[in-house]
Amino acid sequence: MQVIYSPVQQDHDPSSFITSGRVAPSPECPERAERFLAAVTGAGHDVAAPREHGIGPVAAIHPPDYLRFLETAHARWSALPNPGPEVIPNVHPGRHMVARPAHVIGQAGYFMADTACPVGEGTWRAARAAADCAVTAMDLVLDGAGPAYALCRPPGHHAFADMAGGFCFLNNAGIAAARAAAGGRRVAILDIDVHHGNGTQGIFYRRSDVFFVSVHADPTNYYPFFSGYAGERGEGPGEGYNLNLPQAHGTGDDGYLEAIAEGLGAVARYGADLLVLSLGLDPQENDPLGVLKVTTEGFRKAGARVAGARLDTLIVQEGGYLCDELGANLAAFLDGFGNG
Amino acid sequence: MQVIYSPVQQDHDPSSFITSGRVAPSPECPERAERFLAAVTGAGHDVAAPREHGIGPVAAIHPPDYLRFLETAHARWSALPNPGPEVIPNVHPGRHMVARPAHVIGQAGYFMADTACPVGEGTWRAARAAADCAVTAMDLVLDGAGPAYALCRPPGHHAFADMAGGFCFLNNAGIAAARAAAGGRRVAILDIDVHHGNGTQGIFYRRSDVFFVSVHADPTNYYPFFSGYAGERGEGPGEGYNLNLPQAHGTGDDGYLEAIAEGLGAVARYGADLLVLSLGLDPQENDPLGVLKVTTEGFRKAGARVAGARLDTLIVQEGGYLCDELGANLAAFLDGFGNG
Repeated sequence: MQVIYSPVQQDHDPSSFITSGRVAPSPECPERAERFLAAVTGAGHDVAAPREHGIGPVAAIHPPDYLRFLETAHARWSALPNPGPEVIPNVHPGRHMVARPAHVIGQAGYFMADTACPVGEGTWRAARAAADCAVTAMDLVLDGAGPAYALCRPPGHHAFADMAGGFCFLNNAGIAAARAAAGGRRVAILDIDVHHGNGTQGIFYRRSDVFFVSVHADPTNYYPFFSGYAGERGEGPGEGYNLNLPQAHGTGDDGYLEAIAEGLGAVARYGADLLVLSLGLDPQENDPLGVLKVTTEGFRKAGARVAGARLDTLIVQEGGYLCDELGANLAAFLDGFGNG
Repeated sequence: MQVIYSPVQQDHDPSSFITSGRVAPSPECPERAERFLAAVTGAGHDVAAPREHGIGPVAAIHPPDYLRFLETAHARWSALPNPGPEVIPNVHPGRHMVARPAHVIGQAGYFMADTACPVGEGTWRAARAAADCAVTAMDLVLDGAGPAYALCRPPGHHAFADMAGGFCFLNNAGIAAARAAAGGRRVAILDIDVHHGNGTQGIFYRRSDVFFVSVHADPTNYYPFFSGYAGERGEGPGEGYNLNLPQAHGTGDDGYLEAIAEGLGAVARYGADLLVLSLGLDPQENDPLGVLKVTTEGFRKAGARVAGARLDTLIVQEGGYLCDELGANLAAFLDGFGNG
């Protein structure tokens, strides 16, 4: 498996995570990528650096005002009186905004959904590098060089076209999928992170050229709360091109693998010839943010299932947080995929 | 001046205020009300307790789902694993919500605009008592018993019909105004807090039966960022019945008093026969959250100006935070009003 990774991604090192009214260290820490890198290196996969692709592939799905915010927010925030070290939103427009805000505090509430995506000095650089990893890996797939794994950090699937959220800023999988679709490929995204890929769904919700399937824990009592339900099928020209397969909390390997099989069945009926797999390792039973009970062997089987679809495949790293099994789960998934 | 106050309001005692990425003590503390109470008592005003009016007057402007959230949120939050002491939102729907959330964390992001309105154990009780103060004081005005001052805490003018924000939960001034309008009075609200009365504007933005005027600091670089601009004139049946008079930061007595005069002129042209005055004392030059430069004498003159309108008048307390002049400013305003 060809692995694309950039150490520039580690320039994003969020210092806090405000949840349930408390401030805690962020689970989306640089050590995650170190674990992933050690796992793929240990398993003998080749690791290469991304090419710099400029803003073009990113701007194909993210609008200019949002990108300008991400690029400039930290410097503008740092010029406030007594600023915290990172941009964290504290006032949101809700349903009653009349005017688009010009000030960085207002824009933070407009362009950021939650307190789990703090923007620090290196965030823009790291997010751009992560997107470059996804695009570079996609180009390998498009060039017929076989499957590829984009070791992306920060992750991307909670980033909407114009809104950061849940550790995510640029939607790496979405950027790669849009690039393949623009090149004439028939593209599906299968998201198997424990959290609904709400940002990816949002980006493609009114589009028929990228089919989105998400297997995740039931959002009724779980992030992202506002979407991820079975009734969400796409809108307008995208109607019928979105499939959510929420799983009961506590679901283990069998249910997870069945849901993946169901998702792949829908991908096949769509007639996809290229698959972007949003790989979260947080369905793991010991993941600190997880609520499912998938095992390391479950991830191996999941890899084999995905490989069994016989599609040109790009694997993009999404979530998965520090626990003893984190690296082993990635290695198992890639091993299962390679032998599937 | 008849003053209505309930000590139950002090059961709301927020422990934190997350702003610019930092956690700080909340400026909207019980001591504010103690200062106000000492000022009115010291000036010889009569203080009486509110009557309990039940949910009726509140439900006339706030929808049932929002009220149920405020009433139940703290108990539901406290049942979460490792909850913070107060309900503070950390994930918001933004522009991409598909499903209304059932879980308290999702509902917090849906029903709360910001991190400055934490819901604690006593918040619902206190907010209800504040609304009762406003309603009781309004009934005195409606009964022809002369002007009245509702010493409300928590304040109300940042609370929308279905969204808390900026220290506010129930819109005390709006509740009182709607009660008077329902009784056939021609009602105007003049809001002279340093912050735009965004919640009040939102509640009456499509209504012609309550005219809303707000004098406040320019929101371009200041809370609430998303509204308060001069171009906001109301919508639909409310078009022409909303007037914002944003003032440059640093504006002192002269500009503030001119803006109040301009607002009162618009109130007169509307033909109001009853005025609800949303009184913020945070335009004061030493207010910790303020950006204007109004003096204690300025507040005295403001009181006289408002009295000069010769309208049945209810004064409702909004903002104004701990500084040496806080109590004196209230006393000066009421004195100016009484002699105006």
